[in-house]
Amino acid sequence: MGAVTPALVAKMAEALLLAAAAFVLTLVTGRWWVGWLRTKKIGKQIRVEGPERHMVKNGTPTMGGVMIIVTVVILTIFFNLLPDRLSMLLPLATMISFAILGSFDDFLSLTGTRSKTYGVTVKFKFLWLLAIALIASLALYLPKPFGLENSGIVVVPFYGRIDIGYWYIPIATFIIVATANAVNLTDGLDGLAGWNLTIAFAAYGVIAFLQGFDYLVTYAFTVAGACAAFLWYNAHPAQVFMGDTGSLALGATLAIVALQSQQWLLLPIVGVVFMVEVLSDIIQVSYFKWTKRRFGQGKRIFKMAPIHHHFELIGWSEMQVVQRFVLIGVIAAMIGISLALKPLPSQETMAQPGNSLLIPWTSQEVRGGQGEE
Amino acid sequence: MGAVTPALVAKMAEALLLAAAAFVLTLVTGRWWVGWLRTKKIGKQIRVEGPERHMVKNGTPTMGGVMIIVTVVILTIFFNLLPDRLSMLLPLATMISFAILGSFDDFLSLTGTRSKTYGVTVKFKFLWLLAIALIASLALYLPKPFGLENSGIVVVPFYGRIDIGYWYIPIATFIIVATANAVNLTDGLDGLAGWNLTIAFAAYGVIAFLQGFDYLVTYAFTVAGACAAFLWYNAHPAQVFMGDTGSLALGATLAIVALQSQQWLLLPIVGVVFMVEVLSDIIQVSYFKWTKRRFGQGKRIFKMAPIHHHFELIGWSEMQVVQRFVLIGVIAAMIGISLALKPLPSQETMAQPGNSLLIPWTSQEVRGGQGEE
Repeated sequence: MGAVTPALVAKMAEALLLAAAAFVLTLVTGRWWVGWLRTKKIGKQIRVEGPERHMVKNGTPTMGGVMIIVTVVILTIFFNLLPDRLSMLLPLATMISFAILGSFDDFLSLTGTRSKTYGVTVKFKFLWLLAIALIASLALYLPKPFGLENSGIVVVPFYGRIDIGYWYIPIATFIIVATANAVNLTDGLDGLAGWNLTIAFAAYGVIAFLQGFDYLVTYAFTVAGACAAFLWYNAHPAQVFMGDTGSLALGATLAIVALQSQQWLLLPIVGVVFMVEVLSDIIQVSYFKWTKRRFGQGKRIFKMAPIHHHFELIGWSEMQVVQRFVLIGVIAAMIGISLALKPLPSQETMAQPGNSLLIPWTSQEVRGGQGEE
Repeated sequence: MGAVTPALVAKMAEALLLAAAAFVLTLVTGRWWVGWLRTKKIGKQIRVEGPERHMVKNGTPTMGGVMIIVTVVILTIFFNLLPDRLSMLLPLATMISFAILGSFDDFLSLTGTRSKTYGVTVKFKFLWLLAIALIASLALYLPKPFGLENSGIVVVPFYGRIDIGYWYIPIATFIIVATANAVNLTDGLDGLAGWNLTIAFAAYGVIAFLQGFDYLVTYAFTVAGACAAFLWYNAHPAQVFMGDTGSLALGATLAIVALQSQQWLLLPIVGVVFMVEVLSDIIQVSYFKWTKRRFGQGKRIFKMAPIHHHFELIGWSEMQVVQRFVLIGVIAAMIGISLALKPLPSQETMAQPGNSLLIPWTSQEVRGGQGEE
C-alpha cells in the first residue's frame, strides 16, 4: 500500500468493472427480491408523523437493502477476500451485524404488526449499535494479529498523517454509530439515501486509490455499483425501500471504509447530506426540549425534522428535495476528493508509504529495470 | 502534457474546486435568469406529438442552458484561458456558436409564436451545424499556428495511439454534429440531458487527467459543475428547460472535449444514453419509411421515439425513466474510465509523453534533486 503503482492502476480499472458487475448482479437478483417481498407483503407501515402525502407509500415493500448487501458479500468473497486481504472481513462483518440488527427493526415495523413503536426500542437499538461499533473500532486499532494495525492514524488535510493514540477508539466508535444513524435518518425520500450512498462510496473509492489501498478501492466501488442498482427499484414512485436493514448496514460500512482509508476527517464533507440530516434532527429535538423547559412550551426551528421533510413542507416537490440534496452531495464529494489530492507540504512526508498521494513506481520499472534482479 | 505530475495533481484539485465554484455561480445567477425568463414569458410550446401528460409542461421557461454557458465562459476566461492555453478557445467558440444557432430555434418555438415548425427548419439547422463542426474539426486537425496540431490522433483502448490522417476531419465533424443532435434529442424529460451531461463531462475530466491534459481537466469539470447547478432548477417538476441553446451547445462542446482528449473512441460508452437516444430515433424513422415503401403501411419498433418516450408509454414514471437512464450513464462512465486506465502493452509506448496513463514525476523531484540545477 501507499503508492500509485501500475498494479494499483490496473486494480482501479478492475474495481470500476466490479462496480459494473455489482450493478448488473443486483439488478438481476433485485427484480426477484422485490417480487418476493411483495408476495410476502413485507410492506412498510409509514409513520403517521410524516408529511401527509407520504401516506400513499404505506405498504411499499421494505428491506430492499438486502439486495445490495447480498451482492457485496458475494462479490467480495469471490474477488476481494484473498488471504492477503483479510482486512476486508471487517467492513463485511460490520455490515452484516448492522443488517441483522436493522432487520429486527424492519420486521417489527411491518404493516401487519401494527406495532406502536414502529420497530425495536431506541434504547435496545442504540446499545447494540454501540457494542458492535466498539468491537469494530478495536479491530481497527489493535496491532496484528488482533486487529488491522490502523492504530490511531488519521490524515489531516494540508498537514499529513498524525497518530491520536487511544483517542482513536472512542472517536471511531462514535463515527460508526453516528454514520449508521445518519444514513438511517436520511432514508426518508425515494432515492435520497441510495444516491448519497452511491456518491459517498464512489468518492471513498477514489480517496482510497489516492491513499494506495487497493482492496479498499475494490470494496468501495463494489458497494457503489450495488447501491446504484438498488436505485433502479427505488426510483420515484419507489417499488421498494432500503429499510433499516440497508441504511444501518451501509452507513456502518461507509464509516469503516472511511476509517480504513485513514481519511475519515473528510467524511463530514463527503457525507455532508447525512451529517446535515442528523444535525437537523438533533437541533430540532434539543431546541424543542430546551424551549419547553424554559418557556413551558416547546418550539421548533424546522417545520419538521429531519430536514428533508422541512423542505417538502415549504413547497419543494419530493423530487426537488432529493435531486437538490444529491447535487449538494456530488459537489461535496468533489471538494472531499480535492482535499485528498492536495500534495503534502514536505517531500520527506510524501515519500513514506501509506502517506503519499501519487508516488511513482520506481524508475527501474519505467525505464526497463536497471537493478534488483 | 502527458504525464501525471505533482503539478497535474494540484491542477486536478483546482479543477474540482472550480467545479464547485461553477456550481455556486450558476446557482446564484440561475435564480435570477429563471425569474427573468418567467417574467418575459420565454416559455416552451410543447410538441403536440409527445405523450399527453407532457402537456402540463406547456409554458415552462426554456433557454435555461444559458446559465451554464455564461458561467463556463466567465470562469474559463478568468481561470483557464492563459496565453499557453489558447486551445481552450476551441471548445468555448464551438459552444457559443452552437448556442447562438440553438437560440434561434428556441425563440421560434416559444409559446407565443405558435409556429408550426416548433423552431428553425431541420435543413437550415443541419447545414449550419455541419459548417461549424467542419471548422472546429479543421481547427483540431491542422498544425500550429492554424490549429491544435491534434492531427489525426486517436487512442485505441488496449492498443495505443494511432494516426488516422485526413480521415480525422470527416470523423470529427460527424462526432460533433451527432453528439450535439443526440443531446438535443435526449433533452425531453426533466433532468435527463442535464444529469447525463454532468456525468459525461466529469468522466472526461478524469479521462483528460489520465491523458495528462491539465487545461482540459479544468474545462470539463467547470462544465460539469455548471450542469449540476442547472439541475437544481431542472428538478421535477422543472422550473426551466435547457432548450436547444443548451443542448446543442453542450453536446458540441462535449464532442470537442472528447476529441481533444484523444480518447474519443470512448464517447459512445461515456455518452451511451445520448447514443441510444439518437439510434432509437434513426431506427424508428428508417423502419417506418422502409415498411411504408415495402408494405404500403409504416410500422414502428418503439411505441414512440426517442426511446425515453417509449418507456414512459409502457408504464414507467417520468422519474423512473430519468433515474434508470442516469444509472446506466453512471455505470457506463465507470466502464469508460476503466478503459482509459488500462495500461498500454509495451513499456516504450508508455514512456512517451501524451501517451501514458500514470507516468511519475522524475525521480529527482521525489528524492530531493540529484541533477539538472
